[in-house]
Amino acid sequence: MYKIESIEGGVCAATGFFADGVSAGLKPDGAKDMAFIYSDTLCEIASVFTTNKMTAAPIRHFRRYGRFESNFVVINAKNANAMTGDAGMECIDDVLAVASARFREIHNPIMSSTGVIGVPLPIEKIKVGIRKFNLRVKNSNAAAAAIMTTDRFAKQTAVRVTLEDGSSFHIGAIAKGAGMINPAMATMLCFITTDANCNSEAMQAVLNNVVQRTFNAISVDGDTSTNDTVLLLSNKQSHCYDATAFQEALEQVMLYLAKAMVRDGEGASKLVTYDITGALNDAEAQVAAKALSTSLLMKTALFGEDPNWGRVASTIGASGIACDEKRLRIAFDDVCVYDNGVISFDETMERRAAEVMQRNAFTISCDIGLGKGHFQAYGCDLGYEYVKINADYRT
Amino acid sequence: MYKIESIEGGVCAATGFFADGVSAGLKPDGAKDMAFIYSDTLCEIASVFTTNKMTAAPIRHFRRYGRFESNFVVINAKNANAMTGDAGMECIDDVLAVASARFREIHNPIMSSTGVIGVPLPIEKIKVGIRKFNLRVKNSNAAAAAIMTTDRFAKQTAVRVTLEDGSSFHIGAIAKGAGMINPAMATMLCFITTDANCNSEAMQAVLNNVVQRTFNAISVDGDTSTNDTVLLLSNKQSHCYDATAFQEALEQVMLYLAKAMVRDGEGASKLVTYDITGALNDAEAQVAAKALSTSLLMKTALFGEDPNWGRVASTIGASGIACDEKRLRIAFDDVCVYDNGVISFDETMERRAAEVMQRNAFTISCDIGLGKGHFQAYGCDLGYEYVKINADYRT
Repeated sequence: MYKIESIEGGVCAATGFFADGVSAGLKPDGAKDMAFIYSDTLCEIASVFTTNKMTAAPIRHFRRYGRFESNFVVINAKNANAMTGDAGMECIDDVLAVASARFREIHNPIMSSTGVIGVPLPIEKIKVGIRKFNLRVKNSNAAAAAIMTTDRFAKQTAVRVTLEDGSSFHIGAIAKGAGMINPAMATMLCFITTDANCNSEAMQAVLNNVVQRTFNAISVDGDTSTNDTVLLLSNKQSHCYDATAFQEALEQVMLYLAKAMVRDGEGASKLVTYDITGALNDAEAQVAAKALSTSLLMKTALFGEDPNWGRVASTIGASGIACDEKRLRIAFDDVCVYDNGVISFDETMERRAAEVMQRNAFTISCDIGLGKGHFQAYGCDLGYEYVKINADYRT
Repeated sequence: MYKIESIEGGVCAATGFFADGVSAGLKPDGAKDMAFIYSDTLCEIASVFTTNKMTAAPIRHFRRYGRFESNFVVINAKNANAMTGDAGMECIDDVLAVASARFREIHNPIMSSTGVIGVPLPIEKIKVGIRKFNLRVKNSNAAAAAIMTTDRFAKQTAVRVTLEDGSSFHIGAIAKGAGMINPAMATMLCFITTDANCNSEAMQAVLNNVVQRTFNAISVDGDTSTNDTVLLLSNKQSHCYDATAFQEALEQVMLYLAKAMVRDGEGASKLVTYDITGALNDAEAQVAAKALSTSLLMKTALFGEDPNWGRVASTIGASGIACDEKRLRIAFDDVCVYDNGVISFDETMERRAAEVMQRNAFTISCDIGLGKGHFQAYGCDLGYEYVKINADYRT
């Protein structure tokens, strides 16, 4: 038996981890725009990156290391260092050389970036930011705020896992992401730290597994970025580990942050869970759930709080999975609007379904009626604000 | 040699075809909402339907005929007769029986529907509409207007094809579609009539070919409907035919209507051609072109007239095709903003590219730089008006 508790401290909750955010002048209003995460001992690393083939320079730079240990990550907002060619890679070498010269205690430093694509990294400003870092600070709030772009709120969480023998380890994280969020983990960064005694192979296996049900199950706009990154760093300082507890705790941390990204979706006001059951298999359930969470017609109907269940049926039909209108069941929370070919949708039902849609969070359940396949995806509505934010993101 | 000319007459331009639109009280404001197309001799038929598995009743009804000839199509707006089960099929039998009783000259009548999903067909109103039809009328305008839903303008076109020996045939068409338009031919109806002496097998082959470069190359919102239909009816009354001329003329008719749907995209103000060259093959070019035309981030950047070429690169990278940032070239009309890894995007370029984006129609060209694959897709911007239209479509 083990116990998982939410605790304070974010990405600094695990023993031996430090983090802070500073202002390097990248954001125009003097807001924090650069962050670091530092461990006072070396960490093993697991990672998941974007599937976008126009991979940003920081990801290509990370991959150049091969297998390695590190204890320092520097992150900048406002510039993705993507589509910047060899010059983008040289910028990272330059930044990390400055960091290594200033902080003798760091090894194999990692850089991560988010922001606009196709603009050279403002390297002098970034060097200024590096010089402002104080590696003895534990300020997860500031780090979480610094990596925000269009985010409306900072995202961090942490848990303590207490094992049966009384020993405990911690997992903490910060994340950013509000738009360009899609199954393939778009424009999101997440940095997870742990003092669990877990090596990189074990962490990588757990991370690959959990990411499918968390960051790869959310969608804000169906677009996939050049920079998406999840890094999981373990400094093992707790000396304890339990595989089952670790996976459950990591899933709790990642699901919390994934849902926070959807809640913070550009212009979003609702968190909708698409719960697909009865598909031929889990893969088909996933296809249908993601089709719903990505559909523009669904998203605008959510925004209008219009219980247009016909769009749910049509989107499932368009997704390509095996389905049959006579076997389908659709419900908005506990209000069943369509059941096995029978439209149970009169004015009373419409009013009740519309009431469900006014909630900040609710579930659209679809039983495909053909098998045992199950998947949950998470999406949001799309309103005027999304258009406004994305019509002139760069200005 | 042959000559293709645009002519008046729309779906009535071909010899022996009649059409009209009437008001049956389906639209609240007394606007025309039902149309027919009639030929005074039997027609061979070619068809393409939606790939949505929640196929609407009219399409299932059509398929029940097997191979057949017909000379009458009745179309209603405001109700899709989709997700209506067996009752929806019985409604069609009922409507077509009324039509057959009233008009002895019709054979194997066809029904087509567009509008809201999941509401029983208002059959009494539709029977009223049938009784208002006068099969001797040739009013393509009225028919095109009657089938509109969220369309801002009626869509029709016609051409005369004059062959080398002086003989000629005609192709005419009406269409509707403004939203839920996507590669898989979403929520669009198109009825094409011809007096060319062409049998159904030949027509089907040409139609399958041409639809890929026309209706399947457009996207308004990436959603696919339950009702999409293209019908091509040939009564052969011209007694002449030329396969090459027919295909070219049909492509001209269908491309005109496809582009009209994008121009009329819900809330759209621009028609953008995505011209992909240099992909490994045509299939990969198509994937990239459609990814661009469907991307929400591209659509909102178009609405904001923001030459955010990084989103073009990112969307191509996310599409999954083979690509390399060092081989890519991106241009907005004649303004090249990125060339083989070199960002040629300074303030002057940004101003020139922004000027291109203010045009009502322009081309975003992407040379992938890897092969000879080519495809053109057509998309539009997405603004506040799209959200407004789709947030409460049913009310």
